[in-house]
Amino acid sequence: MTDWQEIEGGITAPKGFLATGMAAGLKPSGAPDLALIVSDTEAIAAGVFTTSQVRAACVDYCRQRLQDKASSRAILCNAGQANAATGELGLQDAIESAKLLAEALNIDSDAILLASTGVIGQRIRMDALRKAIPQLVNTLSETGGQAAAKAITTTDLVTKSIALETVIEDRPVRVGGIAKGSGMIHPNMATMLAFVTCDAAVSTALWQEMLTRAANQSFNQITVDGDTSTNDSLIALANGQSRTSAITDMNSKEAQKLQGMLTAVCQHLAKAIARDGEGATCLVEVQVSGASDDEGARRIAKTIAGSSLVKSAIFGRDPNWGRIAAAAGRAGVSFHQEDLQIKLGDFLMMENGQPLAFDRQAASNYLKQAAAGTYLKEDTVLISVCLGNGSGTGIAWGCDLSYDYVKINAEYTT
Amino acid sequence: MTDWQEIEGGITAPKGFLATGMAAGLKPSGAPDLALIVSDTEAIAAGVFTTSQVRAACVDYCRQRLQDKASSRAILCNAGQANAATGELGLQDAIESAKLLAEALNIDSDAILLASTGVIGQRIRMDALRKAIPQLVNTLSETGGQAAAKAITTTDLVTKSIALETVIEDRPVRVGGIAKGSGMIHPNMATMLAFVTCDAAVSTALWQEMLTRAANQSFNQITVDGDTSTNDSLIALANGQSRTSAITDMNSKEAQKLQGMLTAVCQHLAKAIARDGEGATCLVEVQVSGASDDEGARRIAKTIAGSSLVKSAIFGRDPNWGRIAAAAGRAGVSFHQEDLQIKLGDFLMMENGQPLAFDRQAASNYLKQAAAGTYLKEDTVLISVCLGNGSGTGIAWGCDLSYDYVKINAEYTT
Repeated sequence: MTDWQEIEGGITAPKGFLATGMAAGLKPSGAPDLALIVSDTEAIAAGVFTTSQVRAACVDYCRQRLQDKASSRAILCNAGQANAATGELGLQDAIESAKLLAEALNIDSDAILLASTGVIGQRIRMDALRKAIPQLVNTLSETGGQAAAKAITTTDLVTKSIALETVIEDRPVRVGGIAKGSGMIHPNMATMLAFVTCDAAVSTALWQEMLTRAANQSFNQITVDGDTSTNDSLIALANGQSRTSAITDMNSKEAQKLQGMLTAVCQHLAKAIARDGEGATCLVEVQVSGASDDEGARRIAKTIAGSSLVKSAIFGRDPNWGRIAAAAGRAGVSFHQEDLQIKLGDFLMMENGQPLAFDRQAASNYLKQAAAGTYLKEDTVLISVCLGNGSGTGIAWGCDLSYDYVKINAEYTT
Repeated sequence: MTDWQEIEGGITAPKGFLATGMAAGLKPSGAPDLALIVSDTEAIAAGVFTTSQVRAACVDYCRQRLQDKASSRAILCNAGQANAATGELGLQDAIESAKLLAEALNIDSDAILLASTGVIGQRIRMDALRKAIPQLVNTLSETGGQAAAKAITTTDLVTKSIALETVIEDRPVRVGGIAKGSGMIHPNMATMLAFVTCDAAVSTALWQEMLTRAANQSFNQITVDGDTSTNDSLIALANGQSRTSAITDMNSKEAQKLQGMLTAVCQHLAKAIARDGEGATCLVEVQVSGASDDEGARRIAKTIAGSSLVKSAIFGRDPNWGRIAAAAGRAGVSFHQEDLQIKLGDFLMMENGQPLAFDRQAASNYLKQAAAGTYLKEDTVLISVCLGNGSGTGIAWGCDLSYDYVKINAEYTT
C-alpha cells in the first residue's frame, strides 16, 4: 500500500513549474536537443553528480553553484555535445549559457543550473544555443514536461517521465521527474540525466538528504554496462508552492511520505533507464536479503545485475544459477556460502549453498516469458538471493546482454 | 635486457619435475581431463586463490593444506567438474582424491595439492577418477608438460605453456608454467588455473612473497569479463634441485633475478589467457603512468581494460578515446583531469585533459592491423594513459568484446 498515486504531467505536474524543449540545431540529426525547466519562484535545489575524475563542465559548474547557494530557478539541458574534457573553454561556454538564459528569463545567472549530454570532447554549439534561447523561453508552458523529456534524450528509445501525487495537510503535494539513459553506452555518449520537480516545502538540508537517499536506492543501483559517465547528474527542485508547512524533520510523517514518493519517482526513472539499456530485451531485478547490512546487500545485488555472464545467460534464456552464485561471491561482501539461497522467478535453484534439482525447461520458459513481458504482464526477470539471517536488504536493476549491445557499440567505426 | 631466455619443456623444464595428462572420462567429450605434476623431492609450495565467497572444495582444501605445511610433492588437476558449491560431499571427494593419489605415488596425502575446473555445482566423477589414477601415475614423464597443459584446458583454443632459464652461481635455474583460462567465461565454467614449477632453492616465506608479487603484476591484472571465478588458483612449487644456495633475501641479486623470471612466466601466461578470451580478436594492453602510486595505476589500467565500452569500440576498430578517458575517470583513483594524456598505439589523442586533432582513419587502421597481428607482428592493441607527474605505473591486459562473446555465453540454453 502506497500513500500516493500516479498522475499526468511529468515535471510540470507539481505547482509552479514550467518546461519546454526544442530542436536548437545542436544535434546533427535535427532532433530536439534543448530543454528548459523553470520554477515560478526560487526553489530549494539539491544535486547528485558523477563520481568520475573526468567530468563535464556543467558538473563542475553545478557543484560550485550548489555549494554557494542551494536554491535555483531553472535547469537548462543541452543534448548533442557533452562539453566534457573540454577544459577552460568548455567551462566558459557553460558560464555564458547560464548568463544568456538569465537575461532571457530576467533572473540572476546564479539561479541557473546546467546539464549537458552528447559527444565527449565536443564543446556546445554556442552559436546555435545563442539563437535558440529567446525562443526556448517563449515556449515555456505548464504542459511542457513531455517536450523537455524528449529534448534531453540521445539514443533512448522512449522518453522517461513520471509524476506522483500525495496529500499533506489536505493539500495535494506532487513530485515529477524526467530522465535519459542508455546514451551512456552509445559511442562517445556518456550520460545518465534525471531532473525532479516538487512543490512541497522542505528545508535545504533535508531535501539534499532525501535526494541522496533516493539516489542510493534507485539510480545508484542500476547498471547497464558499468560505465559511470562524465556527465551523470540528478538535480531536484522543491519550490514549496503546495503551500504546505515546511518539512524539516526526517522522522516526521510528512517527511517519510515525501521521501517515499521521491524514492518512488527515482526508482521508476531508474528502472526505465535499465529497461531501455542498449540492446536490452528485458529488465532484470535482483533482490538480495539476509545480508549483514543494506550496503552489502545493495553491492551484491548490483554485482549480479552487472555480471556479463549473468546478463548473457538471461539473453540466452539460460537458468544459469552457477553464474549468479559466482557473481554474488565476488562482490567483495563476506557471507557464508553454505547459507546461500538463489531463486529465479519462483524457481528455487540453490539452498544451503547447494544446488537443487529443478525443471530447467520450465525455468527457461520463465525467462522467455518474462523477457517477452508475457509473464505477470511485465518484462522483468526476477532474481532473488538470500545470504543468511542478516537484516540487510537491497535491490538492483539491469538488463540482459545481447548481440545488439555489441552491434550498437562496435559498429560506429569513425 | 632480461637475464633469462625462453626454453622448451614447460613445467617439466625445471629439474626434478614430472608431469602427465590423460583422458579419464571426466569430460563428456572424452577430451583430456586429468593432469598431474610431481616433484621428485619435497618442494616449497606457495599459492594464490580466488577471493570469492563462493569457492570450490579444492580451494578450501589447498588453503588449509598450505597453512599446515608450505611444502608439497604433487598437484592433481581435474577438468569437467568444478566441484564448487557442492558442500561437504564435494570436500570429501577432494580428500579422497588426494588419498588415492598419495597411495599410488606412495607419499603422504598431505603432500598433495588439488585443483578443479568445470561445471559449478557438479561433483567430480569419482568412479572415473579412481579408475584413472594408477594409469595417470604410470604415464608421468620428464616430457609430460604439454600433456598436462592440454589436460587442464576447458574452452581454451590453445594450450598455455612456457619455460624460462637463467644462470645463478654458474648453474641453470629454471621456471616453468602452464595455465588455462577463457573457460571462466564459458557457461557454468568458472576457472583460471596456473601451475608454476621451479628448481631454485628458496625459503618458504620468500617464495610466497615472490608469487604474490608476480600475481599482482600478471594474473590479477587481466580481465576478460570481470567475473572472478569460484576456482581460480595459482600454485607454485620450488624444489631446489638446481643445487644453488638457498635464496632468502628479497634484496639479493639472486632473488631479484628469480622474481623477474617468475613474474615474466606469470605475465606470459596471463597475456595468453587474455588473448584467448572468449570471442576475442586481439589482446589489449593498457599501460598507465604518472599515477601517485602503482596500486592506483594498476587499478586504472584494469578498469580501462575491463570497460565494455572500450572493449566493444576496439572490436569495432573505433579509436574512441572518450571511452578510455571515461573509464579512467571512474576507476576510483583520484587524479587531475587537466593532466590526462591518452595514446592509442602511436596516436596521441588527448593531452592536458583536452582532445587533440588526429587522423581517425589512420588510428582505425592501426586497430585493424594490431588486431590482425600485422602491426609490429603482434595482435596487441596498446593503450597508453599518463595521469600526471606521479611515479606510479601499472599494466593490465584484456581483450575486445565481440559478437562471439555473447554467442558463446548466451546460446547454451540448458
